[in-house]
Amino acid sequence: MIQRPRGTRDFTPQEMETRRYLEALFRHEAELHGFREIATPIFEHTELFTLKSGPNIIDEMYAFEDKGGRQIALRPELTAPAMRFFVNDLTNYPRPLKLFYFGQCFRYERPQSGRYREFYQFGAELIGAPNPESDAEVIGLAAALVRRSGLENYTVRIGHIGVLRGKLQASGATPEAVPAILQKLDKKIYDEARSLMRQAGMGEEDIEEVVRTTQIVGAPDLLEQHPGEASEYLKEVLAILSDYEFTNVQVDLGVVRGLDYYTGIVFEVDAPCLGAEKQICGGGSYSLTELFGGEKVFSTGFAVGFDRTLLALEREGLTPEHKRLKAYVVPTSDAMRHQAYSLVGRLRKEGISADVDLMRRSVGKNLKYADSIGARYVIIVGEKEAAQGAVTLRDLASGEQRLVTCADLTIFLK
Amino acid sequence: MIQRPRGTRDFTPQEMETRRYLEALFRHEAELHGFREIATPIFEHTELFTLKSGPNIIDEMYAFEDKGGRQIALRPELTAPAMRFFVNDLTNYPRPLKLFYFGQCFRYERPQSGRYREFYQFGAELIGAPNPESDAEVIGLAAALVRRSGLENYTVRIGHIGVLRGKLQASGATPEAVPAILQKLDKKIYDEARSLMRQAGMGEEDIEEVVRTTQIVGAPDLLEQHPGEASEYLKEVLAILSDYEFTNVQVDLGVVRGLDYYTGIVFEVDAPCLGAEKQICGGGSYSLTELFGGEKVFSTGFAVGFDRTLLALEREGLTPEHKRLKAYVVPTSDAMRHQAYSLVGRLRKEGISADVDLMRRSVGKNLKYADSIGARYVIIVGEKEAAQGAVTLRDLASGEQRLVTCADLTIFLK
Repeated sequence: MIQRPRGTRDFTPQEMETRRYLEALFRHEAELHGFREIATPIFEHTELFTLKSGPNIIDEMYAFEDKGGRQIALRPELTAPAMRFFVNDLTNYPRPLKLFYFGQCFRYERPQSGRYREFYQFGAELIGAPNPESDAEVIGLAAALVRRSGLENYTVRIGHIGVLRGKLQASGATPEAVPAILQKLDKKIYDEARSLMRQAGMGEEDIEEVVRTTQIVGAPDLLEQHPGEASEYLKEVLAILSDYEFTNVQVDLGVVRGLDYYTGIVFEVDAPCLGAEKQICGGGSYSLTELFGGEKVFSTGFAVGFDRTLLALEREGLTPEHKRLKAYVVPTSDAMRHQAYSLVGRLRKEGISADVDLMRRSVGKNLKYADSIGARYVIIVGEKEAAQGAVTLRDLASGEQRLVTCADLTIFLK
Repeated sequence: MIQRPRGTRDFTPQEMETRRYLEALFRHEAELHGFREIATPIFEHTELFTLKSGPNIIDEMYAFEDKGGRQIALRPELTAPAMRFFVNDLTNYPRPLKLFYFGQCFRYERPQSGRYREFYQFGAELIGAPNPESDAEVIGLAAALVRRSGLENYTVRIGHIGVLRGKLQASGATPEAVPAILQKLDKKIYDEARSLMRQAGMGEEDIEEVVRTTQIVGAPDLLEQHPGEASEYLKEVLAILSDYEFTNVQVDLGVVRGLDYYTGIVFEVDAPCLGAEKQICGGGSYSLTELFGGEKVFSTGFAVGFDRTLLALEREGLTPEHKRLKAYVVPTSDAMRHQAYSLVGRLRKEGISADVDLMRRSVGKNLKYADSIGARYVIIVGEKEAAQGAVTLRDLASGEQRLVTCADLTIFLK
């Protein structure tokens, strides 16, 4: 047998129903917020991702040379492709430009529980509006997606990269030293962060103040103890989120997101039921366009881990009810087959999902098959009933049968 | 600027709306027919495709070695992955098993008009029912997809591989000689087909009869002139399609589909408005499972070229109406901003698509922006109106304005 590639998945009909359900719900919510969908290719020039994330990302990507000698990579994320598309073709669109996308991403790493080599992301970018209200709009969409999914237990944690940057620079760290320190703080590797801060010439007291700051999580009013521009900005974002009636919002000054291009607000959404892998969404405000050859434009965006969100919903026992086939049509004899086909064709035309015996099975075996595929009703097309312009309608759950005229059938089944 | 890879596309919001519209319509129709969706990975072990289509396909694929030394390929089509999935995991599902799928496929070839290196296919497979009615069910779904799309001018052409195979074998060609001959006939390279038939020991009269047969296209009753088992089978398929009320159906004994694994019925759907590249769908009955290490199971399936179908719809002037943002909310001053956010949050919660000024623009500039993004209404949140618990609602098409209370607003906008 040929296996599917390591770290990838096939999805059964039951799984796809759940996935398409959540995808549709996310799409609907994004559209309610005035975001519009775009799509970009599955692979890009490798350079796009090394420009954004540094050369080390090659080790984590499916990167290869195509037959024309081009370096290409299966996309590891969707922000860089979206911003490349913007720079190439969308700069004349009215701003702010509100975009969303959904699709597969790829990473080459050892497959482990809940982490796949092919995974799905839903994300959004708001381009061209560097304001608290645009940041709040994006965080609001992320929170609305999770709320709309039905997940009960989740937290939106919001920080501002400027709080830590300000403290680092005020205590003597040069702008060049800051990114490496922030990366260690992002990963909570405090020993290494401390030694980098020492190398940058910071005093012990300032170092501990920075470390303490990354551990501050709580209600918005704790911002009063950390005054400054970044704090004021955060307060305005939080006030707007409160206008939007989001309540699961915390301030978390330890949200750093270890990449250089973040410029201000940073946020994450957790689903605590997932334990150590609880983060289902991450984002922030950033500037990437100038890296890709465009003018500098501020954006705010996020990506939701679609697979993790599904896992969280499953853990909370929230799976949508499966769609069921409405009618399975069974002719009682060979002579009735063509009448059965006509009927099934008519039902489908009227928007009623319907199937028909394709194996020339007995009525008993057909009832069993109809049950196994989850049909709601069986319609038995028999000679005697047909002579009266009727069929037998059987409710598979109750086992009740009744004679229904063909004219009444669609009304009954709608 | 970093360009997207050659032969790939980005899709704008307008394009995505059309694409998602057709995708949803196809999905709905497949579900009405009792088919259920599956999904498989973007890449597979290269062997899967060489087993199905021969080693030459490597030249036409994005095939590469991953970091673990595995030969993998971006999928060039979706039947082989679907049947691999079936053999691996779905053999215990009740049969017939009716599956459909939608996604990207890839081919490495010189990009040309209407042919992309990344393209989209929608397809279906009915597994386990080798009957005329199951073939008719699959052809019926293909035809229903096209009918549901709104395309007016299309033709379903149906043949049976057995008609030509029977004539070739009856006139002395060995089973080993047949595939190469059929491949030439499929591509309408008649000179080479003739010389292969001569090599296979066939007489000139038989050769011309075979060539003539591949040119037979027309109404079902022409089958009377080509009696035999295959012809009887075709007649039954056509009778069932007539029960399903499909009228754009022709017999075409020249539909060969040059691959070995087709076993019986073969069919194609054309959209004549596309000229030389008119084929938008192709399929047939086949047996692949044994190639992938499973038991032999008969299936019938097809793939619809999603991009070509969209192009055909566009040529016929059929594009769906674009969804429009319902309400764009404008505060008249900074003091009214938080009221505007609250309002927009409430509208979205009630399922009304709404957006809000994120640039602190003047009312005039906001009206212009709202118009440029295609909003239907602008809601102006002003101080005087707010004091009466009301807002100004402006219809962007007519320019009419009226005062509406906040309580009435959602009723008005629904």
